[in-house]
Amino acid sequence: MRTSKEYLAKLASMRPNIYLDGECIGRDHPKVVAASQSIQKTFDLANDPHYGKWLTTTSHITGKPINRFCHIHQSSDDLLMKQEMTRVLCNLVGGCIQRCMGADSMNGLSVATKNADLKYGTNYHERWLKFLEYFQDNDLVGAASQTDAKGDRSKRPGEQDDPDMYLHVVERREDGVVVRGAKLHNTMAPYCDELLVFPTRMLGKDEKDYAIAFAIPADAEGVYLIARQAFSPEREPGMEAPYTELGDIESFTVFDNVFVPNERIFLNGETDIGGQLALLFALFHRHSYCGCKPGIGDVMLGTTALLADYNGVEKTGHTQEKLADVISVVELVYAAGIAASVKSSKAPSGTQVPNVIYAM
Amino acid sequence: MRTSKEYLAKLASMRPNIYLDGECIGRDHPKVVAASQSIQKTFDLANDPHYGKWLTTTSHITGKPINRFCHIHQSSDDLLMKQEMTRVLCNLVGGCIQRCMGADSMNGLSVATKNADLKYGTNYHERWLKFLEYFQDNDLVGAASQTDAKGDRSKRPGEQDDPDMYLHVVERREDGVVVRGAKLHNTMAPYCDELLVFPTRMLGKDEKDYAIAFAIPADAEGVYLIARQAFSPEREPGMEAPYTELGDIESFTVFDNVFVPNERIFLNGETDIGGQLALLFALFHRHSYCGCKPGIGDVMLGTTALLADYNGVEKTGHTQEKLADVISVVELVYAAGIAASVKSSKAPSGTQVPNVIYAM
Amino acid sequence: MRTSKEYLAKLASMRPNIYLDGECIGRDHPKVVAASQSIQKTFDLANDPHYGKWLTTTSHITGKPINRFCHIHQSSDDLLMKQEMTRVLCNLVGGCIQRCMGADSMNGLSVATKNADLKYGTNYHERWLKFLEYFQDNDLVGAASQTDAKGDRSKRPGEQDDPDMYLHVVERREDGVVVRGAKLHNTMAPYCDELLVFPTRMLGKDEKDYAIAFAIPADAEGVYLIARQAFSPEREPGMEAPYTELGDIESFTVFDNVFVPNERIFLNGETDIGGQLALLFALFHRHSYCGCKPGIGDVMLGTTALLADYNGVEKTGHTQEKLADVISVVELVYAAGIAASVKSSKAPSGTQVPNVIYAM
Amino acid sequence: MRTSKEYLAKLASMRPNIYLDGECIGRDHPKVVAASQSIQKTFDLANDPHYGKWLTTTSHITGKPINRFCHIHQSSDDLLMKQEMTRVLCNLVGGCIQRCMGADSMNGLSVATKNADLKYGTNYHERWLKFLEYFQDNDLVGAASQTDAKGDRSKRPGEQDDPDMYLHVVERREDGVVVRGAKLHNTMAPYCDELLVFPTRMLGKDEKDYAIAFAIPADAEGVYLIARQAFSPEREPGMEAPYTELGDIESFTVFDNVFVPNERIFLNGETDIGGQLALLFALFHRHSYCGCKPGIGDVMLGTTALLADYNGVEKTGHTQEKLADVISVVELVYAAGIAASVKSSKAPSGTQVPNVIYAM
Repeated sequence: MRTSKEYLAKLASMRPNIYLDGECIGRDHPKVVAASQSIQKTFDLANDPHYGKWLTTTSHITGKPINRFCHIHQSSDDLLMKQEMTRVLCNLVGGCIQRCMGADSMNGLSVATKNADLKYGTNYHERWLKFLEYFQDNDLVGAASQTDAKGDRSKRPGEQDDPDMYLHVVERREDGVVVRGAKLHNTMAPYCDELLVFPTRMLGKDEKDYAIAFAIPADAEGVYLIARQAFSPEREPGMEAPYTELGDIESFTVFDNVFVPNERIFLNGETDIGGQLALLFALFHRHSYCGCKPGIGDVMLGTTALLADYNGVEKTGHTQEKLADVISVVELVYAAGIAASVKSSKAPSGTQVPNVIYAM
Repeated sequence: MRTSKEYLAKLASMRPNIYLDGECIGRDHPKVVAASQSIQKTFDLANDPHYGKWLTTTSHITGKPINRFCHIHQSSDDLLMKQEMTRVLCNLVGGCIQRCMGADSMNGLSVATKNADLKYGTNYHERWLKFLEYFQDNDLVGAASQTDAKGDRSKRPGEQDDPDMYLHVVERREDGVVVRGAKLHNTMAPYCDELLVFPTRMLGKDEKDYAIAFAIPADAEGVYLIARQAFSPEREPGMEAPYTELGDIESFTVFDNVFVPNERIFLNGETDIGGQLALLFALFHRHSYCGCKPGIGDVMLGTTALLADYNGVEKTGHTQEKLADVISVVELVYAAGIAASVKSSKAPSGTQVPNVIYAM
Repeated sequence: MRTSKEYLAKLASMRPNIYLDGECIGRDHPKVVAASQSIQKTFDLANDPHYGKWLTTTSHITGKPINRFCHIHQSSDDLLMKQEMTRVLCNLVGGCIQRCMGADSMNGLSVATKNADLKYGTNYHERWLKFLEYFQDNDLVGAASQTDAKGDRSKRPGEQDDPDMYLHVVERREDGVVVRGAKLHNTMAPYCDELLVFPTRMLGKDEKDYAIAFAIPADAEGVYLIARQAFSPEREPGMEAPYTELGDIESFTVFDNVFVPNERIFLNGETDIGGQLALLFALFHRHSYCGCKPGIGDVMLGTTALLADYNGVEKTGHTQEKLADVISVVELVYAAGIAASVKSSKAPSGTQVPNVIYAM
Repeated sequence: MRTSKEYLAKLASMRPNIYLDGECIGRDHPKVVAASQSIQKTFDLANDPHYGKWLTTTSHITGKPINRFCHIHQSSDDLLMKQEMTRVLCNLVGGCIQRCMGADSMNGLSVATKNADLKYGTNYHERWLKFLEYFQDNDLVGAASQTDAKGDRSKRPGEQDDPDMYLHVVERREDGVVVRGAKLHNTMAPYCDELLVFPTRMLGKDEKDYAIAFAIPADAEGVYLIARQAFSPEREPGMEAPYTELGDIESFTVFDNVFVPNERIFLNGETDIGGQLALLFALFHRHSYCGCKPGIGDVMLGTTALLADYNGVEKTGHTQEKLADVISVVELVYAAGIAASVKSSKAPSGTQVPNVIYAM
């Protein structure tokens, strides 16, 4: 498993293709490094005596120890541990832990590639398993790249005036495909290793060019990350505050005729499975929410209780009622995730899938 | 395990002490028999190929097969099964299954008697275990008898103008105690075998006479059940409707100087444990609610969906949104019960206790 | 203006055509007399020194003193007084005052008949004015008869399998029309003088037979009132309780080929105005709700506060918060009615129409 | 009446005592000028053919035309016009119109000074009337200065560890008083003419030093405005956007031993009237909210509707339901203000006071 130092060194070696505040910057830019602080923790704490039990697990394909953010869930317990880890880490960093984006994408792909193979006789799952081994061995950070620009929501992808409103294949070659379009609200894309790209919605039978899923290094030729510092508080030097260790940069990621080689294509034209994959990522991600929303809620709750205490109103009925309301919401969300884990089921790929009713 | 026929025969043999619509009636009165229909199912289905797996389990004290409504939960799985059984049975009878009243009381007593013994060197738990064996062997139906008249809520039990506002000990004898007071909203008391009586709230150190818990046959000398047919729809003969199989009679149960022998006393003066027992019953009962509220919600949901279908509005957005709202509530409650089971813990008595946060 | 004695005498003289609990009864039946108690108050209090100012006004067509429930609103102040009267009377009787059904129907007809004349050159308004004079002079009680059986809500009136799902014209004669169908949830129809009948929804151009509005005595040939005692608590003799003076009988009113003479027809085939009339009644009626819902809310509020007081919890924060919540709802509804009155406008007929935004 | 140019010129002539972003600045600083844009409109539009009817009225003391923001309400219609003006102006500027702070303070003072005189034989009202004439003649902008630092909310003003947690009198002289403390969240104080200072809460009989109300120029000796640019979007030059005309600077206003001459003291030691005044300002201000919240709600509604339209979802059920929800809230708040105006009453001073139930 990597250290945060190795993670940052790898980022620094990547091609500068991030456009922030009017400049083209590389991943060694202080703002990018600062934004990645939460993700750095996921490396730093993997061997921590307290946090290690959540952050580390064993690969079901290689038997090697891996970071849980690279793991494909094999059991109800795996899902429960992922949910618990997410809450614990969000408590620690005081906000979004971010790295679940890649984990949830990889789990969605594990199911969809197998389902495609079973229905269409393709061999996406084998390809994807090779990529998974590479992903786990190198302890990579993936960014879910799903949300398209969409344009007119009353029209389907293939009906838009501008064909690039949804990312799609524009050229098919022997050795791969060329894609064009953009992925929006692309959380943590500027400091990931790999963009994990897949459809954003259900697709019609004639929308084969939109049914494309693949992995691509975030600095690949033709990829432009138009970035926004979503959250990155700065403080006067000398005034320490743990809150300033939180950060987040997201991007509007443009794919301007990007070539994707065959071995990194995990779906290509199977429109029904494309829609299924869109929902699968969402399902795994909502299950992660059942950990992070309570985790962030805990922080808000503690902050609010502290403020009440500070103002001398901690004993008043209306304060206690409001705090109790927050607890109710926080714990109901957590309970829903537990139920989704306990009532989960196994997909043909062997992946453990949260119950859709409870992770709705 | 008993049959419903044996259950009804036992009821018929009891002393008539039910006062309904101005008459004193016995338990063979058609209204009482009708009201007990839901409970009859818990006997009839114990050997059913479909329902049996929920309704039957093994006694942890005798190893004999018993009805789950007589069981003391020993594991998370026991709690999950109880919750699931409750939902399934409420789906079947279309309303409250009622018999959980006794199960939740006995589980509360299992914990409180042990805790009292550990703290005060008493031997309530052993006494209670003997009663449990009798209860399981005879497949009895117990009625939780908790809610006192309360009077002025701004005053404590010992401060009321009328000392009988809370049930209390009025005489102490060598062989037992004499109690006076009343228990209200006493669900299914008119067709139970045993009243399981315990405090309704936290108690002060000087309220020892109110810290009393015991079991007493529902037709014991001095017990008067002033009854109300809470729900018992009647239909014209010939117009069949499963709904008419639902029924419920509750009572305002008066204890007019009732003698309780020592072997049936499970708490007597330990005020702190008295308050603990009040909350313990409530905790086990709220966990049951996590099964019955979804179960009854399912029935309401199905009825509503059928009505929508019948009126031709099943496809409209506002109908589907309202049905989805009901599903959300139903499944969040169920999820809370699952979480309370999964995150449960073992009491010193060995009883598995639901997590209080999730069964709140 | 009539006395309640005269009102009851007139009811007693009507043809028995009410079917209640399996019997055909007349309007002198004790249950009908009891149900009409709220309406009797509207006669008894017209000359009361306190209530008279709300209950009595001056006819804008004859200049004679009339009961406000027979009045056509001519100003914002008329609307404010109607709203206030409704709240005051609901406070008094402890529930629905019922007689607004006729007032709101007549106000709706005043606007719609004029609008039809202006658009189609008909003379409905003159006809209706004659009926209004008769209605006011005889101090009549009218029942809004709007809600049709509707059948399959996804189909229009003209598309139903059963053509009688919506009341419609089945024969046109020189001297009038014959109608068939039913009106449901027909509040206070069993103790009104006149049924005021009009469409329940927007109508298509080809649904002329459904665009019919008229007044008919409630005991006319072919009218059958299949009744349900919606609310009529009975008490043991000797136990007085003001609450028992509340009552209500509604009917499923069948029109089995009922002849309506021309002079009582107020709309006949003008489909757009038919839909408009449906909404106009609803608008005047929702404005009445802005008086009665607060009025009934006041009673619930007082009852709840009394219960809190009786139980010794009147000072607790959660009790006061809940009472405050009720006050908020009650007064926001009342405020909406005031705003609808203040921001009202004049229809071509001269009728003052509440603002639709605030009486929504 | 002044022009916005005259208003800005007066501001520019004031003593620089605003501390923003680490600098001490005057009122001619571009940020202050930009923040005052909404208030400038209240001068510019006073003679506008469309807006003039709301912005201009007649002084009840001098008979001269004045800006309505300087007016003391004399009738229900005055209150209705103030409410309507507020909505119309908030629609125009797209946010808070700000100048109501002074109007609501002056109306509160009009009532409280008279009530004090009637109870204590003082002559505050006459003093205040002289100040009102000066205020109206010079078309001044006042800032409500009410919220104290408060400290420990479980302690009264006189019980705080730091006596300056609530603004109070520290010295009494023949010609006036010296006050110390601070007023927080002091909206638009950096670009007002006068600070209108009064208590923030009910006061005990022994808290006379806290029962102080007065007017003081915002640049008076000892006044420090520690400012925060609450809202002031900046855009690239050349990219026009009406939204950038919105602005707001508030201050933490410190009173460091500020002398207030007798003729500007409107309450001094009358603790009961001090608490009354706190509530009176709040009442007039909540009535203003019944205009501004709908006004800002309209802008949010229009923006949302436009976004829905732009995305092609304007016809979907869930979009329309959400827009309808906003309309409901907006219009219920507006209705509450109308009801508060219609059901208003006259104070002994002649001021028309909104009904407290509806402006709650």
